[in-house]
Formats: sequence, C-alpha cells, structure tokens
Amino acid sequence: MKEPNSTIRILLICIALLMPVGAMAGEAASMTVTSNTSDILPSWNDCQAKTAILDYVAAVTNDSSPSYVPPEERIAVFDMDGTLCCEQPSPFMLLFMQDRVRDLAPMHPEWNSEEPFVSILSGEILTESNYSIQEIFKVYAATSTNMTVDEYSALVRSWINSIHPRFGRPYSECVYQPMLDLLDYLRSNDFKNYIVTGSGVDFVRAFSESTYGIPPEQVIGSSWEYKFVESNDTSSISMLPNIWNYDNGPTKPTSIQLFIGRRPILAYGNSDGDIEMLEFATDGNPEAIGLLNNHNDAAREYIYDEGALNSSEMAPQSGWHLVSMKDDWKWIFPFEMNRA
Amino acid sequence: MKEPNSTIRILLICIALLMPVGAMAGEAASMTVTSNTSDILPSWNDCQAKTAILDYVAAVTNDSSPSYVPPEERIAVFDMDGTLCCEQPSPFMLLFMQDRVRDLAPMHPEWNSEEPFVSILSGEILTESNYSIQEIFKVYAATSTNMTVDEYSALVRSWINSIHPRFGRPYSECVYQPMLDLLDYLRSNDFKNYIVTGSGVDFVRAFSESTYGIPPEQVIGSSWEYKFVESNDTSSISMLPNIWNYDNGPTKPTSIQLFIGRRPILAYGNSDGDIEMLEFATDGNPEAIGLLNNHNDAAREYIYDEGALNSSEMAPQSGWHLVSMKDDWKWIFPFEMNRA
Repeated sequence: MKEPNSTIRILLICIALLMPVGAMAGEAASMTVTSNTSDILPSWNDCQAKTAILDYVAAVTNDSSPSYVPPEERIAVFDMDGTLCCEQPSPFMLLFMQDRVRDLAPMHPEWNSEEPFVSILSGEILTESNYSIQEIFKVYAATSTNMTVDEYSALVRSWINSIHPRFGRPYSECVYQPMLDLLDYLRSNDFKNYIVTGSGVDFVRAFSESTYGIPPEQVIGSSWEYKFVESNDTSSISMLPNIWNYDNGPTKPTSIQLFIGRRPILAYGNSDGDIEMLEFATDGNPEAIGLLNNHNDAAREYIYDEGALNSSEMAPQSGWHLVSMKDDWKWIFPFEMNRA
Repeated sequence: MKEPNSTIRILLICIALLMPVGAMAGEAASMTVTSNTSDILPSWNDCQAKTAILDYVAAVTNDSSPSYVPPEERIAVFDMDGTLCCEQPSPFMLLFMQDRVRDLAPMHPEWNSEEPFVSILSGEILTESNYSIQEIFKVYAATSTNMTVDEYSALVRSWINSIHPRFGRPYSECVYQPMLDLLDYLRSNDFKNYIVTGSGVDFVRAFSESTYGIPPEQVIGSSWEYKFVESNDTSSISMLPNIWNYDNGPTKPTSIQLFIGRRPILAYGNSDGDIEMLEFATDGNPEAIGLLNNHNDAAREYIYDEGALNSSEMAPQSGWHLVSMKDDWKWIFPFEMNRA
C-alpha cells in the first residue's frame, strides 16, 4: 500500500507545483506574443497592405467577430509566377523547357530547321511575349511528355537548383521572402494555402513543398493528359502530349471549384490572369481579401506592368490591395536578408 | 535578485518532479491503448481483414518500422457507391436524378414521348444495367446542370434526407458503419481520407463532410464543365451540360495523380471499376494495402457480384483483402446498432 500512497503524494505535490508553473508558462507565452508583434511578416515594411493583412487575419480568426471564418473554410489561393517567385526573364517552367530544348537538341537534328526550336536554340528567350501559346504547348510536348510523372518530377527537382542568369542564385531561392512570411503566417492561423497557377501542376509540385511548404495536393495548375500504365511490378502515370486544362484567367475559379469545392477567402495574384480568381474570392464576400503584387522595383527585381494593366486598374474599385514591391517589402529575396 | 532565484528553484523542483509524472503518464497512455484495443473498429468482427488493417496501420505509423510512412504521405482512397454506402437499388446519384425527373416532369411534357424519360417516368429504376452511360449523361444534363454549384448542392443536401425504399431510413444513414469506423481510425492515425468516385464530385461534396467527415477538397469524382459567371454583386460557378471527366476504371488513378499528386498507400473499393485504383496503390509498394467489399449479405444488405467478378478474382494474386460484409461486419448500418 505504500507504493500508491507515495505516488499519490508525489502527484499531489506536482499538481500543486504545476499550477504556478502553468501560470508562469502562460505569462511567458503571452509576453512572447506581445513582444513578437513586430516579428509578424518581418520582411514587410509597415504599410497599408501589411496593416490590412493583419486586420483581416485578426478578424477572420476571432470567433467573436462577425467576420469569423471557421478554420476548415480558411482557403487562401496564390498565383505562382510573379506572385510567389520571380518570373523574369521568363516563368520558371518556360526557362526549364528552354534548357530542355538545349539538352535534347543533339538527339533532334530536325529542330535545326523547325520553329520554334530554331529560335530557342539561337538564344531567344522562351517567353509568352516572344512565342504564341501554341508554340509553347509544342515545346512542352517535345520536352516534358512521353515520360512518367516520377521521371518528369526528377528532372524538375534537378533543374530548380540551376542558376538564375541575373541573380546568380538557384531558382529555388528566387522566391519572394515576404510571400514566404505570409504563407507561414497564414498557416499558423490555420489557413490552407493553395497555389493556382498557369504553370504545369506537375512542374510546380516537384518543388512546392521544399520551396513554399505547400504539399502537392494543394497545387492546382495546367495539366496535360495522363495515361495509367500497368507493368509487371509496378504501375505508373505517363504524361501524354495533349493539353487537358490551361489554368489561367476564368479557368482559375473553375479549377478552384473542381479541386477544392470551396470559395477562397484570400486570393493573391499579380496580373490580369488572376482577375477572375480574385473576383471569385472577393465578389460579394466581405470576409475575403484580394491582393496584387506590383512589380515596380528595377533595382532589386524588375519593373514591368505588361499583362497587369487591367488588374491594377480594377484594384481600387474592387477593394484589392496593390502591394508595392519597392516600398512595402524590406527584402525581396531570401539571399538579401543574409547580406543585410 | 531573490525573485529569479526562487523562480529557478521552483522550476528545478518542478522539472525533477515532472520526470516521474511524465513516466507515469506514459504508462497510463500505453495502458489505455492496450485496454482499448477491442474498441478499435468496433463494428468489425475479429477476422482476417480486421487483423490485416490493424497490423498495417501499426507498421506504417511506427517510425522504427521499415514500413514507416510519414503522416503527409498517408493517403487513403475510397470508392463511394458500394464501398462507403449502399448502392442498391441504384447509386445515390442515380436515385437523385430519377427523383429529379419525376419532380421536373410537369415542366417537360416532351419527356412523355422521349427516352430515357418515358421509362423512368413509367417507374423503371435508373440503374447502370437498365440504361446506357449516354442515357445517364442525358438525364444528368437535363436534371443537374444549367444551375450554379451552390443551387445544385442545396438540392442534393435536401434529397439526401429522403427515404431509402427498403430500409425506411434517410439515404444519409444508409452508409456502412464499419467504413465510418475505418475512416475514423485512419484519421486518428494521421491518414488523409479521399473519396474517389464515379459519381459526380459536386453531388458527393454536398454531404461528404456531414456523412463521412470528409471535407470537399478530399472528394474526387466525375465532373461536368463549369463556367465562371460574373454578376453585379457576386460571382458564381455554373454547371454546364457537358461531361468533363468520367471518373471510373483507369481514370481513377489518373484523377488521383491530378488532384493529389501522391500515390495512395491504402485503396478500398468494391467493383471492377476500382481495379486500377487498387493497382496504383499496391503494385510494387509493400507498404500499401488494398481492400474490397464483398456484397454477400442478402439479409442485412444485398447479395450481388455483377461488375465485381474481375476484382474478386484478382484479389488473391494481388494480395488484396476481400471483406465479407456478412461475416466480417458486426453491423452494416448505423441504425442496426441502435436496435442492438
């Protein structure tokens, strides 16, 4: 009988002692929160957009607020190219395809007399302004299909470590630190972050988890037809050269419906291709917030508004926040922080 | 100086005392697990399939096991009709469409001379054996499109409470209690459960959370074309009468790839339409498990093997577990438990 008694005694002492410890821990925790307020979104300068984000998150996560949104409905959607990462001199996927053309050229002598391969091999950068969407699909089919998804993903994972021509850093680091901060902040407030991109879904999934902390099932993108292939020991998914869904403009909200089945409450883009996605989130929904990056920093990134004139013009009347990358962001890339 | 010192002293005492408390808590926890073993999958009788499931979950969740699978990769996929819920006299969605034909008939006098409407209105049940897939798509287009997803969902949510002709209970209760137990058990072991169904994605999403605890973004199904529609105050997604993806057979693994981007480690079906999904999960993957319900209980549910002959035949050689609904399940429906 002695054993239980002494255990009970120890337990009672512990319970008594745990109470003040619990109280102290509570104080420490709340002190941490208070002292860390300035550490929320640390790569953002104090600005209208940052204040709007903080106020918005405070409202939708406060269960006594009329704007409260339960955690399972906190869906945030992000465009990728130009929103989460640098899209100059061209989006990652096009640069990958361009490098694939060069790698594969020795096996394709016919490309020396066939457009758009001739131009690409002559050094012209593969961009959406230099080439038609049909030409881009043609290059995609020639460089990125007729292999399994696993084989393709391995190629992309290797490529993402190659070096950006201007910044001299791997593409995986040419992503916007303020956006990484925002993804973290939303995650810590029980948001589910999705990428909704015109780039290929398999392309982005190859690095979405390691680069953005976004798992593959939270990536929605353009897709090509798949084929299920059985073999002796294992089965696989093969990528066919036929486009299935080009995820841009009005297709973004329909893809969100198809993949998620919920209306987002936060949408973030940077171009006219994101207009409908922002409308889907914010039209008639006072709980929702829409944001757009404005590429206006030639010194640290690029300055351009091609393909973003309509979205910028719509922003004020739609209540969307235009984020000045020049003024609102302390750093643009993670590697700038290391230099600071 | 006294204040910190006394705090540190209290802390040190607490740390010293917490160690045995922690050990005791650990013992208590493991005792709980042991005493609750019989409560895992309570609607399952002790049987080969239940043992296989428990052994499988123990292996993939034990981080010192060679079969360990990290939580984010624990993807489980379930067919719906006949796997999670009763599909007799016909799958839920077809019964819904049949009821819609009757409701809408007064507004469609032309249906009195147009097949398949004539037959449906004469009382013939809308099943996949009585009607061709083209006829079913035609009925779908006529009863379930040209409205917004929100309008359609509201119709389904209302219908799901209507009464099953044999069991006299709402369709929402004509779901398999042992499968609800399994979904719970997997969830508590950090699995992410997906429905992968030939039924419409919007149909199933209307009740997947309330019925199965599966959120809309974890439902993959057949889909029809959407259209993004802007209006004055709010925007919406409209359902068009054109089939986009019929999610059955070899399309199940390609849909899983498109929506999830990961290979499942558990696949559960009940018919030949699930073969490729089970192959995708289990081929060459020793960590994976495949299961199939065998509808062999005429007294409590239905007895049939139409459309399941190939999958049953493949089960032994593929290492898939055939679950005898008659012998392996204590109860089939939740309402049987209340009677017990």
